Amino acid sequence: MDPIRIAIVGMGKIARDQHVPAILGNNAFSLAATVSPRDSGLEDVPHHRALDALLDEGPAVDAVALCTPPQVRYDLAALALRRGVHVFLEKPPGATLSEVAALKSLAEKTGATLFASWHSRFAAGVAPARAWLAERRIDAVSIVWREDVRVWHPGQDWIWEPGGLGVFDPGINALSIVTHILPRPFFLKEATLVLPENRAAPIAADIQFRDTAGAPIHMDLDWRQTGPQSWDIVVETDAGTLKLANGGAVLSLPSGTEHSEDVEYPGLYSRFATLIRGGRSDVDIDPLRLVADAFLRGRRETTDAFYD
Amino acid sequence: MDPIRIAIVGMGKIARDQHVPAILGNNAFSLAATVSPRDSGLEDVPHHRALDALLDEGPAVDAVALCTPPQVRYDLAALALRRGVHVFLEKPPGATLSEVAALKSLAEKTGATLFASWHSRFAAGVAPARAWLAERRIDAVSIVWREDVRVWHPGQDWIWEPGGLGVFDPGINALSIVTHILPRPFFLKEATLVLPENRAAPIAADIQFRDTAGAPIHMDLDWRQTGPQSWDIVVETDAGTLKLANGGAVLSLPSGTEHSEDVEYPGLYSRFATLIRGGRSDVDIDPLRLVADAFLRGRRETTDAFYD
Repeated sequence: MDPIRIAIVGMGKIARDQHVPAILGNNAFSLAATVSPRDSGLEDVPHHRALDALLDEGPAVDAVALCTPPQVRYDLAALALRRGVHVFLEKPPGATLSEVAALKSLAEKTGATLFASWHSRFAAGVAPARAWLAERRIDAVSIVWREDVRVWHPGQDWIWEPGGLGVFDPGINALSIVTHILPRPFFLKEATLVLPENRAAPIAADIQFRDTAGAPIHMDLDWRQTGPQSWDIVVETDAGTLKLANGGAVLSLPSGTEHSEDVEYPGLYSRFATLIRGGRSDVDIDPLRLVADAFLRGRRETTDAFYD
Repeated sequence: MDPIRIAIVGMGKIARDQHVPAILGNNAFSLAATVSPRDSGLEDVPHHRALDALLDEGPAVDAVALCTPPQVRYDLAALALRRGVHVFLEKPPGATLSEVAALKSLAEKTGATLFASWHSRFAAGVAPARAWLAERRIDAVSIVWREDVRVWHPGQDWIWEPGGLGVFDPGINALSIVTHILPRPFFLKEATLVLPENRAAPIAADIQFRDTAGAPIHMDLDWRQTGPQSWDIVVETDAGTLKLANGGAVLSLPSGTEHSEDVEYPGLYSRFATLIRGGRSDVDIDPLRLVADAFLRGRRETTDAFYD
């Protein structure tokens, strides 16, 4: 089978740190081109300054991975899908829920694959956690996601703008895991969003969800954590406590703890290849919907200005 | 056929102004009870202070109309659906998108009918507007929804709280019409929400949407309009201009203008009866999703404090 010729659009930090090595490490793909308005791309890989230039002038591509900020993703995805080019969307899949719904309809119409990726779902502990929880009674869930924004998002102004998600940019990773491993849907009851007085997006949030059987799910997000970082999910059940640490990489069950290698982006690209070969799409908006609900219903508080 | 025995839950202004006369005027229904914690209900109609008391003690009901503020609607709806009681949700159908999705799943499981009502879709001009627009090229849309909150929502503190929608409470009526009459989906590009410094919800908003063919859709919401009120939708097409005025009641086409009687709530209850008799649900969250997108992506500005 010929490899899937793919272009990366948006050559920022996530593209270089994760997408390039995952593509180069997967025989199902060949990296055909890069696209970025500001950047010269990679050595020995054809580069364009705009996606339409690539699609018009070549080299030919079968798929694109969109690693741009979410605010500009819709137009790029629609352009590709209309030409029958498969689309991999970094998370979050868009700046709004309605544009993702429109893309999903467009993909159904054109027959191209649309993959709304959630990389944390491919962390090593997530699949076994889901399997273990499937048969349990869930009593309570605690999510603590505290990291240092200066380390992880240095100078990324877009993340603080309307349409960027602020601290929900990492927080949505936690939600992508929790929506995947819990056996029941859940929804927001109360939220407090804390915004720096000079920014349009939250730097911290405290959220109370509840599942449809009444179990409380608490989420604590904070971007001001220096020193050790926390990306932990703890689920209390009738069979004891499950803990996912390190963003899903380390799973602890009553029977013991498993450590594994990082397999997130390789897992995503395997999934993307499977979807393309099967002529299918995978567009789950549940994590983004929960974030939208927090913005819709959350109470806002103002805190000290934030400077990078 | 026996009439559908229905109870009204939440005996506020909308219940008394609209639901009671619509139910009494429709032979498919009999008004079996009312429920309200603070109010004594209607003469000659059994009254309870809580829904579970009604369901436990009777009289027996087949359906409930939930006219409470959206913040408490989920628990009431879930209680009813779990007992196989059909549910009519006033708009908006919930305080969050995720809880409405959970209710939809629950209704599918129990087989009871769930109807997320959008009364403005039953305004007299809406169905002919939809039919007329189906074959047109849409060039631009303008929505102007300007009313006096002191007249229409006197003393309704819940509407200013997180989970209340502020000026989107009327604005979602416009969105329920526009999502219904336009031939293509649309999504938000930019939004500015204007919040009084002493309130958690917007008193005005300016929003730019775009449909999937690129047509601009502008929405102007304001709750500070005294004097004549504006609930107007203007659609520019390749065959001339369509205008829906008075919240959808008055339709003007290039061929002339039609005025009609108010038929919104009678139309809703006819639809609810049809859904129940057919064993079906109707849960369209598109209008609420667009509002959530505005809260998710909108830029916020602060304005003068608002006092009733």
